[in-house]
Amino acid sequence: MPLPPIDHADATPDVRAVYDDIMATRNVPDVNNFWKMLAHHPATLARTWDSLKEVMAPGALDPLVKEMIFVAVSVTNGCQYCIRSHEAAARKAGMTDAQFGELLAVVGMANETNRLVHGYQVELDERLK
Amino acid sequence: MPLPPIDHADATPDVRAVYDDIMATRNVPDVNNFWKMLAHHPATLARTWDSLKEVMAPGALDPLVKEMIFVAVSVTNGCQYCIRSHEAAARKAGMTDAQFGELLAVVGMANETNRLVHGYQVELDERLK
Amino acid sequence: MPLPPIDHADATPDVRAVYDDIMATRNVPDVNNFWKMLAHHPATLARTWDSLKEVMAPGALDPLVKEMIFVAVSVTNGCQYCIRSHEAAARKAGMTDAQFGELLAVVGMANETNRLVHGYQVELDERLK
Amino acid sequence: MPLPPIDHADATPDVRAVYDDIMATRNVPDVNNFWKMLAHHPATLARTWDSLKEVMAPGALDPLVKEMIFVAVSVTNGCQYCIRSHEAAARKAGMTDAQFGELLAVVGMANETNRLVHGYQVELDERLK
Amino acid sequence: MPLPPIDHADATPDVRAVYDDIMATRNVPDVNNFWKMLAHHPATLARTWDSLKEVMAPGALDPLVKEMIFVAVSVTNGCQYCIRSHEAAARKAGMTDAQFGELLAVVGMANETNRLVHGYQVELDERLK
Amino acid sequence: MPLPPIDHADATPDVRAVYDDIMATRNVPDVNNFWKMLAHHPATLARTWDSLKEVMAPGALDPLVKEMIFVAVSVTNGCQYCIRSHEAAARKAGMTDAQFGELLAVVGMANETNRLVHGYQVELDERLK
Repeated sequence: MPLPPIDHADATPDVRAVYDDIMATRNVPDVNNFWKMLAHHPATLARTWDSLKEVMAPGALDPLVKEMIFVAVSVTNGCQYCIRSHEAAARKAGMTDAQFGELLAVVGMANETNRLVHGYQVELDERLK
Repeated sequence: MPLPPIDHADATPDVRAVYDDIMATRNVPDVNNFWKMLAHHPATLARTWDSLKEVMAPGALDPLVKEMIFVAVSVTNGCQYCIRSHEAAARKAGMTDAQFGELLAVVGMANETNRLVHGYQVELDERLK
Repeated sequence: MPLPPIDHADATPDVRAVYDDIMATRNVPDVNNFWKMLAHHPATLARTWDSLKEVMAPGALDPLVKEMIFVAVSVTNGCQYCIRSHEAAARKAGMTDAQFGELLAVVGMANETNRLVHGYQVELDERLK
Repeated sequence: MPLPPIDHADATPDVRAVYDDIMATRNVPDVNNFWKMLAHHPATLARTWDSLKEVMAPGALDPLVKEMIFVAVSVTNGCQYCIRSHEAAARKAGMTDAQFGELLAVVGMANETNRLVHGYQVELDERLK
Repeated sequence: MPLPPIDHADATPDVRAVYDDIMATRNVPDVNNFWKMLAHHPATLARTWDSLKEVMAPGALDPLVKEMIFVAVSVTNGCQYCIRSHEAAARKAGMTDAQFGELLAVVGMANETNRLVHGYQVELDERLK
Repeated sequence: MPLPPIDHADATPDVRAVYDDIMATRNVPDVNNFWKMLAHHPATLARTWDSLKEVMAPGALDPLVKEMIFVAVSVTNGCQYCIRSHEAAARKAGMTDAQFGELLAVVGMANETNRLVHGYQVELDERLK
């Protein structure tokens, strides 16, 4: 019952232009289902791609670090699709098994200590104000 | 009505030993309120410190990247104390304003696209299975 | 290993009475698995149905808006079953593809800006206090 | 700018009736701000009180366990007001400092391992299916 | 210790241009602290404003409905600043007390039933697949 | 594409030692997939097992209460694997259907009232400060 993905062949010209830019930018032969679903709302497709392209580009942080941050958020939110696609992107950008293991260890501890802070109702230290 | 922080002077010897190790490891003159609250349950204090010391130590990822991942999780969970203390730790480890800006931009986009994936009920691509 | 859904034919009279009211109220030939699972705790079944019937009834907000709000929460929480069943209810109440697209766009942006607010630790403006 | 709490003296008779039932049931001289805010929507006030009274009553689980479960959820969601009011209720029901410490330790570990499960994308074991 | 808000007078020309567009579009004499914090990363400021302006504009959904969806997400995530600023925006767009009450009632029930679905591990009905 | 679980036969000696301790402590013939996935990062495996063993041991709270708290958190976070494995552990520790029903009822109500508190922006009562 969910909407079907929209393939390149069935897409309108504006959607196809976004797909083409994704494929060219990432040097891949097709776009992921994520984009094929956003295509149901072309304005969201175009805006999301423009934003992601800008945000994930190399800058003060390199692409590997950005992909690991993306994984950290997706794991915290429990978004399976996002975890898998961005783990894949991080590995493509050079993430090793050891780095993935440390990434998840930090994500786990942060989720734990976030709750210890809430639970004990820790007040801000003077020096953090 | 929440429990009060337990200062070094009022701590039991086992708690004090953890405080001393935190101060020595981090080269700081006192421990944060976080630790002074965990001290109400000494087993949690000792275990959490042992775990954090291990997880946040330099390894396959450097401490700055680890602190930024910690911030990413804390921002996603909305834990103010955690954001502030780990933003401070990340800055101490060298994070620039530009890096902080890019970190938050990625965290924002990840939280957005996580929900677009949920909302459109995106199926895993074959290549991600 | 999870509990099995309880069908109408196997239900106790009090559970059956709730099922009958759901089917009559919604003019459907059977109840969803959601209700067939709650039936394992009849007090929860009855209370949840009474509450939902009251809360989702037309009032100051019309049923379509209420279903879209329900979808917004379910997408934020990543509850697949809830997204699908309330997307279906929203479409039955008249939601178009364009409205669904805009709904998800707002949900995505809200999840993003919620985290930008946390990340930058934005203080309340005077006029909002 | 948020709505003001509605005190007993200023409440409509239907709201006052709910307040009176809360005070009688809990044997307290006044109701909390939570109820004084819900009073802005009397249907929500009445329904929420009826539901909470039913759900938190002694049953297969005793009130202390129920309050601790309430705290566990509130800590996970980071709801400060809820944590404080239900920690207070749990202490009134007999919760000791040691029990509170263990409660938070479990909540912390559960939040951590939930993310390790997501991050490693752990498949259900056959025996759990 | 958090970064200070950047006022119009202290902003760079590109930041000032965004502020001016926000003030003109919304017909307000100044921008909120939210924008004054994003100004620390001008690319995020410009992108977020462009996105919000597009997403929140009247379309298939009217601005009031969009603001209520924004509030629903912000309440679910517990973002106080976001709740207050978008509740204000919703009221400006015409939201009545009764509508606000029903909005929160739906948000509450959705958050409850989302967890009942998770807890009972409800399987998708055939008709929802 | 996710990593495969690591069976006992294929595990390194340090991983095997953890598996053996889990099997001995819990008196089970094999470890769950959770542990077989953590084994990809032996430090995380060892630390997580040590922590869980300590935290879930009988203490001021009995194991059944601890497992129910674990379920409450996992339901709130929507972690299916965690719900199922800890529901199983809770049942093994004696949880009845009636207790499970009440547990989920409390979890549902807590998630609802957490959002009513956020939505109405309830201020802390004097007596809770």
